[in-house]
Amino acid sequence: MAVAEETLAANVLRGDVRAIARAITTVENDAPEAAALLSALFPHAGKAVVIGVTGPPGAGKSTLVDRMTAHLRKAGKTVGIVAVDPTSPYTGGAILGDRIRMQAHATDEGVFIRSMATRGHLGGLAAATGRVLTVLQAAGKDVILVETVGVGQDEVEIVGAADVSVVVLVPGLGDEVQALKAGIMEIADVFVVNKADREGVDRVVAEIESMLSLAPAVDGERPAIVQTVAANDQGVAELLSAVDDFRGRAERTGVLARKRRAHLKQEFEDTLQERLMRVVRRRVLGPDEVERTVDRLEARAVDPFAAADAVIERMKI
Amino acid sequence: MAVAEETLAANVLRGDVRAIARAITTVENDAPEAAALLSALFPHAGKAVVIGVTGPPGAGKSTLVDRMTAHLRKAGKTVGIVAVDPTSPYTGGAILGDRIRMQAHATDEGVFIRSMATRGHLGGLAAATGRVLTVLQAAGKDVILVETVGVGQDEVEIVGAADVSVVVLVPGLGDEVQALKAGIMEIADVFVVNKADREGVDRVVAEIESMLSLAPAVDGERPAIVQTVAANDQGVAELLSAVDDFRGRAERTGVLARKRRAHLKQEFEDTLQERLMRVVRRRVLGPDEVERTVDRLEARAVDPFAAADAVIERMKI
Repeated sequence: MAVAEETLAANVLRGDVRAIARAITTVENDAPEAAALLSALFPHAGKAVVIGVTGPPGAGKSTLVDRMTAHLRKAGKTVGIVAVDPTSPYTGGAILGDRIRMQAHATDEGVFIRSMATRGHLGGLAAATGRVLTVLQAAGKDVILVETVGVGQDEVEIVGAADVSVVVLVPGLGDEVQALKAGIMEIADVFVVNKADREGVDRVVAEIESMLSLAPAVDGERPAIVQTVAANDQGVAELLSAVDDFRGRAERTGVLARKRRAHLKQEFEDTLQERLMRVVRRRVLGPDEVERTVDRLEARAVDPFAAADAVIERMKI
Repeated sequence: MAVAEETLAANVLRGDVRAIARAITTVENDAPEAAALLSALFPHAGKAVVIGVTGPPGAGKSTLVDRMTAHLRKAGKTVGIVAVDPTSPYTGGAILGDRIRMQAHATDEGVFIRSMATRGHLGGLAAATGRVLTVLQAAGKDVILVETVGVGQDEVEIVGAADVSVVVLVPGLGDEVQALKAGIMEIADVFVVNKADREGVDRVVAEIESMLSLAPAVDGERPAIVQTVAANDQGVAELLSAVDDFRGRAERTGVLARKRRAHLKQEFEDTLQERLMRVVRRRVLGPDEVERTVDRLEARAVDPFAAADAVIERMKI
């Protein structure tokens, strides 16, 4: 490893804020030095508690994450926050998001906040988030909160890979939310009904309970449902204790170990796929081969499967 | 190609509804016969107009798609609808969705509707959707509407790959929608403000206009903004004519050809990656190698990058 990466890794390990920021940029962009850096950090990762927070837009996830952070800080824990935000070239969404979030914890060295753009990551968003988590874990954060704003496949996968997955819903978001709930229902370890001072809270709770009653309970336990009004700090302590309860139970029953193992397997396979494709692009595909293949695809003279198989054939694997 | 696939492909090409359904299941699940089937269908694909429809939950996308379908049918066009829905093992969301949609067009042979689950696709959701589109195009549908319910990275990618991308917003969805809008803003060729009989419609239109004014116009043209009340069929004809206008312009300026080329390139690279990993799993990785690697990852005795590079090294590419 080059001296520069060695120094950067050492500075991350002692929790230096600027080093963490630089390391995250390096691994998020998958810069050439990212692999060496991650190799140096990986042995020190895996100790933090990772809490994923997801739910439909308008559920108040960011406020909830801010409030959870305040409680965790009071309890003496250091906190990392990864907000997976949609970005726009117009508004620079991620940066704006950081600024708003920063206000509450700006002067607190015990909180590191980073927004991630949702697009253009080599190997996909989930893989990039995994790399960022490795950096924050190696930096010694006690708890890492991963918040996703989107509610697509990648975002569900990211939150599902956390030690504890929190799904946030609110009263009165309309029927289509029912459909969204279906997609994220399976990954929920703890449900939050936020904005619980609004009308319709009982209906949402009843709907969650009715869905849960159809599913097999894990070790006789069903996900807790916690009501919060994050803006007034109501129910946030209860939420954190439900998260702790789940984690304690998951540790005892082996559920946590299985989750973490599944996540490591995914991380290995994603990394293998990503680095393999990079080597294939560099050493197997000729300089203009992709463009020439696309010419033939446009002419419908070949199909993507036959074209791919021809490349693989040549590799003599 | 086996006789069974040959027959299935021939039946898809003549538009047989049961054959289309079976072919979609085959390619969605990436069954062993999927590649041969797609190779047979691909030369006949590429002629349909593909319209992507996305936007936050609650925007009324499904109603809009239903209304667009009715107008297209009146104009004598055959229509394929792909609804990318979150699925749950509890509620079987996708199937339920199909049933509700089916009611309006159940007896119409000129409409083929399919909901896709958002999870568990080899090579990702976007790749699976691409395969389903190939089937519907080969089956001779004139127009294909792709509706995504989620608003994550994959869903944006899917809609962005359409010939024309329609982004649906509504008045009064709260502040977090602003953030979501940023993520999907870039892919919009046509904006719809649906439920335009609600309060706040002027504000939404003004916000879109203000965002657009910050972006460079393509050939001096900015995306149209169409107001609709889909439930009452208001503005739907105007929307379809805005879609036609965009497509006509995109055809003349070469924008459409560039979009389609970029999509074919992505399809080739996704297919190559997917099939390459399959071969590596079968021929390179030993029977227990993945599990043994995960053991070492758990012990932090190796990191994912070093483990992946060791496999690639052995392949002597």
